Amino acid sequence: MVEKYIKEKRRMELIGLEIPVISEDDNLGIEYLADLISSYPLKDGDIVVVAETLISKLERNVIKKEDVKPTPLAYKLAEKLGKSPEVVQVILDQSKEIVKIGNGFIITETKHGFVCANSGVDESNVKDAIKPLPEDPDRSASLLRKMIERKTGKKIGVIISDSMGRPFRRGSCGVAIGVSGVCALWDRRGERDLFNKTLKSTEVAIGDELASAASILMGESNEGIPVVIIRNAPVPFTDGMGKDLIRRKEEDVFRN
Amino acid sequence: MVEKYIKEKRRMELIGLEIPVISEDDNLGIEYLADLISSYPLKDGDIVVVAETLISKLERNVIKKEDVKPTPLAYKLAEKLGKSPEVVQVILDQSKEIVKIGNGFIITETKHGFVCANSGVDESNVKDAIKPLPEDPDRSASLLRKMIERKTGKKIGVIISDSMGRPFRRGSCGVAIGVSGVCALWDRRGERDLFNKTLKSTEVAIGDELASAASILMGESNEGIPVVIIRNAPVPFTDGMGKDLIRRKEEDVFRN
Repeated sequence: MVEKYIKEKRRMELIGLEIPVISEDDNLGIEYLADLISSYPLKDGDIVVVAETLISKLERNVIKKEDVKPTPLAYKLAEKLGKSPEVVQVILDQSKEIVKIGNGFIITETKHGFVCANSGVDESNVKDAIKPLPEDPDRSASLLRKMIERKTGKKIGVIISDSMGRPFRRGSCGVAIGVSGVCALWDRRGERDLFNKTLKSTEVAIGDELASAASILMGESNEGIPVVIIRNAPVPFTDGMGKDLIRRKEEDVFRN
Repeated sequence: MVEKYIKEKRRMELIGLEIPVISEDDNLGIEYLADLISSYPLKDGDIVVVAETLISKLERNVIKKEDVKPTPLAYKLAEKLGKSPEVVQVILDQSKEIVKIGNGFIITETKHGFVCANSGVDESNVKDAIKPLPEDPDRSASLLRKMIERKTGKKIGVIISDSMGRPFRRGSCGVAIGVSGVCALWDRRGERDLFNKTLKSTEVAIGDELASAASILMGESNEGIPVVIIRNAPVPFTDGMGKDLIRRKEEDVFRN
């Protein structure tokens, strides 16, 4: 006879924060964001998730259409994809390999190593520009974390999130493209299950799960929540990086 | 000059619940779980996420090794993969197509349509059996939701979650294999961004994001948290299904 009880074991909280709407024309920087976030009462162990769009805007990592000179390849692909040649040119500039060409999108491997649609380049939530992913999201995460830790004296983690589609399943999910101060890929092999058997093959993409959780509050459109604090997450505060979550081409059965 | 403020706009809470450890030998059922969950003070709009392992155990959807008769193909693959022929036979029985054979794993399309490693079959967190995915996770989610709603009078959503690997990125993430009462795939095309531009291609796998969020508390090993309540998630309570998240083979550039 199995007993019957249910009890709270753990509670995690996500706090969606609104900040002023920032455009790529505002001459701000990561320090501006660090100031804002530091004015919120953070606690030790908080994980601060920031949408990559905000980082790219703060780093002024945006491209004006009139500054792009499309190549003949960009013109050709643009017609096929129904995109502007300038956007396609930026997608190509941001990529190191075209992985697949689909109906209206290109899957590339970006110069960072992310495999995603259109090199992560988009035109949403910027005023009038083409927006690539941040140059080096791990560096931006580390910079932001150190600034906030200096200003607040709290030990925190930072994740820079994007949303990406994936093969086999519909819809996009939050992923961690930059990580600092917290685990990104959690190797749980060797731990025990409920019946004391050893787990064989469990590496958890905890950085992506945290980014997905934050993404529920961030949304995709005009929510105006580019920053989410995750409080009380049972996650190791090791020195993870967004890079840890990239599967290298030679280890990927879907690229060979 | 951009003003400086940061303010809380939305708070979401995840509550990890512990229940007695259940083995596949306990003669229980979904009603047992519905009773337990209903004894927790639920609120309207709560989303109850349940690990698929628990559902398979409650539905006694487990297979004893001695009841499996491996075919010659299972023996051959078992040697190649370093798995037992019985486990490989169950993997094959649960699949409708082998998509890729990797180093120690098979990627299949399961009879439900999920593309995942080893047809989602595993031996973790069961006492001594081979455990396939639930027969029909959408049906189980719907059954559980209706039972809880009847017992509590609250309007809730239910998600049955698993964790799956994916191409291009390392580690596994929570995904929603069964959904009832809440949106699974959220079509946000046509909505506006921060600068009032129309979003072009945003379908959000909100079911998977909720499952990933819950998975942070559930963990993978001996946390003993197979049930997570997500409270105050800004998600439409439409009649989503786990099936909505499956990309059909003919629409998948990585399967053609």
